[in-house]
Amino acid sequence: MNIILLSGGSGKRLWPLSNEIRSKQFIKIFKNEDGYESMVQRVFRQIRKVDRNAKITVATSKTQVSALHNQLGEHVGISVEPCRRDTFPAIALASAYLHDIQGVSEDEAVVVCPVDPYVEDDYFEALNRLGKLAESGEANLVLMGIQPTYPSEKYGYIIPADHGEVSRVNTFKEKPDEKTARDYIAKGALWNGGVFAYQLRYLLNKAHELIDFTDYEDLYAKYDTLEKISFDYAVAEKEASIQVMRFAGAWKDLGTWNTLTEAMEDTSIGDAVMNDSCENVHVINELDVPVLCMGLKNVVVSASSEGILVSDKEQSSYIKPYVDQIHQQVMFADKSWGSFQVIDIEEESMTVKVTLNPGHSMNYHSHERRDEVWTVISGEGRTIVDGMEQPVKAGDVITMEAGCRHTIIADTELKVIEVQLGREISVHDKQKYELEG
Amino acid sequence: MNIILLSGGSGKRLWPLSNEIRSKQFIKIFKNEDGYESMVQRVFRQIRKVDRNAKITVATSKTQVSALHNQLGEHVGISVEPCRRDTFPAIALASAYLHDIQGVSEDEAVVVCPVDPYVEDDYFEALNRLGKLAESGEANLVLMGIQPTYPSEKYGYIIPADHGEVSRVNTFKEKPDEKTARDYIAKGALWNGGVFAYQLRYLLNKAHELIDFTDYEDLYAKYDTLEKISFDYAVAEKEASIQVMRFAGAWKDLGTWNTLTEAMEDTSIGDAVMNDSCENVHVINELDVPVLCMGLKNVVVSASSEGILVSDKEQSSYIKPYVDQIHQQVMFADKSWGSFQVIDIEEESMTVKVTLNPGHSMNYHSHERRDEVWTVISGEGRTIVDGMEQPVKAGDVITMEAGCRHTIIADTELKVIEVQLGREISVHDKQKYELEG
Repeated sequence: MNIILLSGGSGKRLWPLSNEIRSKQFIKIFKNEDGYESMVQRVFRQIRKVDRNAKITVATSKTQVSALHNQLGEHVGISVEPCRRDTFPAIALASAYLHDIQGVSEDEAVVVCPVDPYVEDDYFEALNRLGKLAESGEANLVLMGIQPTYPSEKYGYIIPADHGEVSRVNTFKEKPDEKTARDYIAKGALWNGGVFAYQLRYLLNKAHELIDFTDYEDLYAKYDTLEKISFDYAVAEKEASIQVMRFAGAWKDLGTWNTLTEAMEDTSIGDAVMNDSCENVHVINELDVPVLCMGLKNVVVSASSEGILVSDKEQSSYIKPYVDQIHQQVMFADKSWGSFQVIDIEEESMTVKVTLNPGHSMNYHSHERRDEVWTVISGEGRTIVDGMEQPVKAGDVITMEAGCRHTIIADTELKVIEVQLGREISVHDKQKYELEG
Repeated sequence: MNIILLSGGSGKRLWPLSNEIRSKQFIKIFKNEDGYESMVQRVFRQIRKVDRNAKITVATSKTQVSALHNQLGEHVGISVEPCRRDTFPAIALASAYLHDIQGVSEDEAVVVCPVDPYVEDDYFEALNRLGKLAESGEANLVLMGIQPTYPSEKYGYIIPADHGEVSRVNTFKEKPDEKTARDYIAKGALWNGGVFAYQLRYLLNKAHELIDFTDYEDLYAKYDTLEKISFDYAVAEKEASIQVMRFAGAWKDLGTWNTLTEAMEDTSIGDAVMNDSCENVHVINELDVPVLCMGLKNVVVSASSEGILVSDKEQSSYIKPYVDQIHQQVMFADKSWGSFQVIDIEEESMTVKVTLNPGHSMNYHSHERRDEVWTVISGEGRTIVDGMEQPVKAGDVITMEAGCRHTIIADTELKVIEVQLGREISVHDKQKYELEG
């Protein structure tokens, strides 16, 4: 199975655990044998279980590449969108990537699916069948239609021609009001979860019809000139040869705190104490200090180094405009080499804890407008400062003036307290270099 | 007016803003023209307003001396209890301190009052009158009786002989149940708020009667051998010549989050956002990141580097056993020279932000089992390391191996990131020295 996972943007609805850099699919909230896994880790594990040879490609923006490598390892296929241009350009680019870079044949089927459905293994078995349907060539496009469980106003609906397991699509309907949704469902309508399959040839032809490009490299180069347009609007709604396959298994869209906490196995993650009078309370605490809850009902508490949310569960779905008001420094991020956490901010300094995974290193870089001091607090590795390499271990201190080129290489897991000093500390003040030799 | 303010112990009921080191009276929660002031700062300001020449002595334990100097300046009178021995020994020690150290005459009156009543200026005018009554010598002991506003089970009651403004005391009653309290009040009973006045001679004689000591120094030296006994039990309940003066003004005991939030001028202190559907919600946030509240009713949220409390207001008075469960590192403290805040804890390191006030310095000290690295992040001053003095400014780094003697002196406000490195990091690993020269 070839599968493209569409990995969406910043998830303000799950603030403070998601931020501009960490989208909701990277929050580690699902219990497994080893601890906790994120949505994207869960989905990868589920796909591999159903098809251990599945070729998985994540279509996403540059900002998520580090987090993807951090959570999925170095060998995951990533189709990087140079900028955001909605789903049709993203799918066209990922399809060109599969063909031109990964060498997938035009006859093969490709399944497209969002990266963050909360589902069981039967969902991925259905994706496998969806791919086989597309490969059979009966229709140009095969959609997955999700059996509605309530008359939701949140989803678009697919109206099938009949009640068969697989049937032709009569028409699509935009997000309706509840009453209309009820009517659709009575007529056998299905939710459009944005899941579909096609033969690679079909999509590449569509892409060439709508966009003037030669190959993957060319499409990538001109990506910022493309029109923003959704796949539904550009392709699905205009396609005559189109089928829908019913899926009646469990399917949840965990987009808000309300729905996310329903999927939590325990009532709390992290250091939390609740008294007996708490009812239907969930706590997700990423801080090193305890959260104590007393006498609360239907409340979610979520704490990270970005901030603290305390919300009635129903109300939590209205969070976005309030988070938009909160303009703030990104306080933590997963990087391909490890992670960082801001632990103190002053007017002319910022203190950061940097954790490097064994065998990883930062880019070789310099800053124009800040000095830095590293104090190694655990582990062993090497620093390179202006071309000079030296071994470092816990207790060692490295001072770097503005302009000096530097990196650190972790031989074991390595933790460093980095003090940044200057009047204009900014993530944009960074020049990268190739390491000589 | 001579006034002894009794400053009590650790306030777990207001966790996470109070901790083992910071008692509730030091939490800055009351709005004034310059920002926020603590209970102890508010009381000092109010006393000075009523009597600018008042001689104020705080009776307290060693652990509060730094915080008192930090909040009230260097010149506040402090009678330090070497250990906790309940109110009678504390009042005896403070009275001996007034006589032997401060030179107060035996004829003068002394007013004793807890450091943390939430009151208006009329309360301190009443204290002034209480002192004058004691000075007149009509009775040995003059109590303030607070006019009850409800049949509280929290307070002891004073039963006066009549309904006069000042009257003889018939008897004392222990904390009653609500019904009994109602009966007492019907008979004109008053709350015993632990406020009283006496001529210094009276209390010194009582002290010599009950304790074998010569003077302040001697009492201080044998303080740990004294029996724990309350002033009410040792003195007040046995005294025949005793009056009570009614006080009908505003008086509140802000001992729980529920009562404390009632005294807040605004619904939040610190970085907080609430949506419109919040009702009767208070937020006190000492962290640098925002708290967002949505759809909450009758809730208090309090966040500090010790932890986060989210509680129904009524329930918040039952907090103590839950806080007792939370064994943790002290994460912040006010010191006489400034303050510190723990910003990161790892297995073999701890990172602390240290702020020194201008003109202040740490003790000259060393640690046996940890190395330290200071990175100055703002201000100017001097370090002394193993006897060598050198000027320091933002960006300077000082490394100190275990055993090395060191201090830092702030010429301006000085902020330092201190990384402690070692396997057994403990506040008890500290040896102090006199600075030579």
